[in-house]
Amino acid sequence: MRASVLSDWLAQRLDRGNGQPIYRQLHRLLQQAILSRELPAGSKVPSSRLLAQELGIGRNTVTQVYEQLVLEGYVNSATGRGTFVADSAPDEIVGVPDAEALAAPLESLPPPLQGNRALSTRGARLIAGAGVSKRQWGAFMPGVPDVTKFPARVWSRLHNKYWRRLGPDLLTYAPGGGLASLRHTLADYLRTSRSVRCTPEQIIITTGIHQSVDLAVRLLSDPGDLIWTEDPCYWGVRSVLHVSGLQSRPIAVDEEGINPSADDLAQPPKLMLVTPSHQYPLGMVMSLARRRMLLEYARQNQCWIIEDDYDSEYRYGSRPLASLQGLDTSGQVIYVGSFGKTLFPGLRIGYLVVPEALAESFATASAELYREGQLLQQAMLAEFIAEGHFTSHIRKMRTLYGQRRQTLLDAAAHCYGDALPAVGGDAGLHLVMQLPAGSDDRAVAAAALERNIVVRPLSGYYAQPSLAPSGLLIGYACVPDEEIAPAFNTLADAIDATLVQFA
Amino acid sequence: MRASVLSDWLAQRLDRGNGQPIYRQLHRLLQQAILSRELPAGSKVPSSRLLAQELGIGRNTVTQVYEQLVLEGYVNSATGRGTFVADSAPDEIVGVPDAEALAAPLESLPPPLQGNRALSTRGARLIAGAGVSKRQWGAFMPGVPDVTKFPARVWSRLHNKYWRRLGPDLLTYAPGGGLASLRHTLADYLRTSRSVRCTPEQIIITTGIHQSVDLAVRLLSDPGDLIWTEDPCYWGVRSVLHVSGLQSRPIAVDEEGINPSADDLAQPPKLMLVTPSHQYPLGMVMSLARRRMLLEYARQNQCWIIEDDYDSEYRYGSRPLASLQGLDTSGQVIYVGSFGKTLFPGLRIGYLVVPEALAESFATASAELYREGQLLQQAMLAEFIAEGHFTSHIRKMRTLYGQRRQTLLDAAAHCYGDALPAVGGDAGLHLVMQLPAGSDDRAVAAAALERNIVVRPLSGYYAQPSLAPSGLLIGYACVPDEEIAPAFNTLADAIDATLVQFA
Repeated sequence: MRASVLSDWLAQRLDRGNGQPIYRQLHRLLQQAILSRELPAGSKVPSSRLLAQELGIGRNTVTQVYEQLVLEGYVNSATGRGTFVADSAPDEIVGVPDAEALAAPLESLPPPLQGNRALSTRGARLIAGAGVSKRQWGAFMPGVPDVTKFPARVWSRLHNKYWRRLGPDLLTYAPGGGLASLRHTLADYLRTSRSVRCTPEQIIITTGIHQSVDLAVRLLSDPGDLIWTEDPCYWGVRSVLHVSGLQSRPIAVDEEGINPSADDLAQPPKLMLVTPSHQYPLGMVMSLARRRMLLEYARQNQCWIIEDDYDSEYRYGSRPLASLQGLDTSGQVIYVGSFGKTLFPGLRIGYLVVPEALAESFATASAELYREGQLLQQAMLAEFIAEGHFTSHIRKMRTLYGQRRQTLLDAAAHCYGDALPAVGGDAGLHLVMQLPAGSDDRAVAAAALERNIVVRPLSGYYAQPSLAPSGLLIGYACVPDEEIAPAFNTLADAIDATLVQFA
Repeated sequence: MRASVLSDWLAQRLDRGNGQPIYRQLHRLLQQAILSRELPAGSKVPSSRLLAQELGIGRNTVTQVYEQLVLEGYVNSATGRGTFVADSAPDEIVGVPDAEALAAPLESLPPPLQGNRALSTRGARLIAGAGVSKRQWGAFMPGVPDVTKFPARVWSRLHNKYWRRLGPDLLTYAPGGGLASLRHTLADYLRTSRSVRCTPEQIIITTGIHQSVDLAVRLLSDPGDLIWTEDPCYWGVRSVLHVSGLQSRPIAVDEEGINPSADDLAQPPKLMLVTPSHQYPLGMVMSLARRRMLLEYARQNQCWIIEDDYDSEYRYGSRPLASLQGLDTSGQVIYVGSFGKTLFPGLRIGYLVVPEALAESFATASAELYREGQLLQQAMLAEFIAEGHFTSHIRKMRTLYGQRRQTLLDAAAHCYGDALPAVGGDAGLHLVMQLPAGSDDRAVAAAALERNIVVRPLSGYYAQPSLAPSGLLIGYACVPDEEIAPAFNTLADAIDATLVQFA
């Protein structure tokens, strides 16, 4: 459809009698036209004056709808030149899973939420795109460590020690940045284990990756700013970015990590979010050449790089490369990590390492925005690390997870031989099993869940699930060794049942 | 200055040779002109086309600056009619403390932050407006309970009990909304103590007021939406609103609580944030008539009311009125509370009670955005409440704080008689001592801090500190009885030294 016939197309579909406000109808119809490519990328939409005239509606209505579509990333407004359909429609940009629903004919949509049920635009998209699972434990939940092996007695001893000599300082609000002893201990640990170069003041304690990214994004970017995310990437962080108003551009990854094209490079983002140690969820390690390229590009274009060093502790075989942060000579890198995968997720302690020039602003903003506390747990953690429990726990778990990974690989090979290869198992707590091209990994995951097995469809991590490779994220960390093979056999039943239907 | 001479005024001040981008200069000059009232509220600014022509700069530059000013709330863009200076400039709207700096001549400003030091617009304003203190303990820190009286042995016993029988369910991520047992216990407690009517499913456990407000605001409003805040109000929540892009309109309070004028009522907000039980920081209780008015207005105009029921447990004398939530028959009220003031701030457990229709969305969004944990602490707290420790602790602390309050009032009367009256002491953990009109409460607070006494200037809680009444927030809760009179005498030294200078 050419833009010139848009007015007719819209006029045929707007329905003054159906009880829905014209604003909502027009908004939804334009979303449909863009998502379905009937209005192709780059095409110009009529001026608000013209469209209002042709549809016989108020110009304010049209303007408001256009502004909403700009905010949502469907169109770009170039002042003086007009309004154009964005190069990447939001289903590509943000990976909204309900793109199908949006693109469905208007009649089949549920009536818009109104009154007490009305979420905001950003709220509704957050809910529609939510990736969070109701299950947080059991075979093969990815991203969850075996918390039953956590040295609970050591932790309890530390707890009792601190509660016995409790002063008010550990029970009240956290000073900006968190407890000094933990920041000192972490600076030492990160220097030796991850080649991160920082003073304790550059470390900001948070409740985890979500809060770390939220803080960095709010301090360093404004609504509408561009951020590069890896494609695929972690859905949770994508939601955090989206709700803060960022426009995310998914960048393809290859075997060396994030791989921006010439088109990508031509539009420098304000931020980029990368997982160099272990691409999430595919598992490849970013090459040194790619790291250098990224740092140089960020330096030249004054971009911030958020380095999510998640899971870097768990490697089976090769040694990890040093962190990007350690290679950064111009203060462009924000390094984020967490104790959720090494100790236990419910602990809710993570951290940022920020460039020196930003340290004070981050500390202030953290206290101002989140009013954090949990200093007692921070004190316990500092001592837990300083006494060596942390590194010995990681060593122990690395051995355990390495065995479980091998047990899982054996079970998969036993069932499928080389037919369904697994990737990304060299590090982390899960591996990705590839499914035949064109197969529906969501259907497989649903069939598995019916059999009480949790796996996550790989396509859901991509910005465009419908074009993504098919596969399964299989977490082995929290599954006892002896349960792995039986659970995999149950999963194989689900795969076979679904792929037969597919074939 | 009339808008028609704006172009000349700007042309004289734009400096192509000073190394600052024209965009930044124009942005800052327009901010100055608005803040200094040279461009009065309601006046129309020239069209981007015209201004670009007259200044000989690109139209895109002007448009971008205008868009930035719209985002920041300096101007409103009425499509088809032009761009107008907002009724309330942002120093009034958001209470930016650095309004003076913004309004200063361009030459005296530090060079704009660039490169690695550059915060985003929202980040810079967050830092400039941050109210958080580096001190969190000691006479007379407001808002901090006496954590040394917390029943640490009971808490430790619960901790050890749960750690001994630890299953993975309490160590991993929280399901959306928090632990079922705590939500059940809270529903009972809130029904009996606060007349809150809800099912456990309507309760969403958070880390405190900040996260509760952040979640509600993101789910229920979009950037640019209007929110009513009480004037004065808590600075921390104001920062949370601001960084989420809300435009806040300060509404005066009288002895019956928030008191919107006809002008205010003519522009229904998307949300309002009120403290009915005990206005923060002035302490008055919202009258029943005002509560009914507010609920009816919200019903008619489909606004959400966020009821911050903070400190409602601590009343010395009168019984509190039932919560707004309990009076609400149309599901407009979001009730928020926390355990920070009743147990200890560092605990970081708070909650929202949301209308039934929103419960599932809030639970999902909470898990998606924050990925919370801390289930072990939630389990301990549920048992702590169910075993009766919570109510007995509150009873004990109410007696203790009532005594401390009286000791403080006596010390103040001893020093000043009726000259400096105290208000707001009927509830909560602080009272407000009025200072002579026109005196500089910030100077008094600074003089007190030099003497190691923490008080907060009342004017800082107002949207326009320069027009606000002068006073001090004096927290008595965390000061041992015997230290109150000596500490007050030190404070009186600071007051006398400063007020002499003032007189």
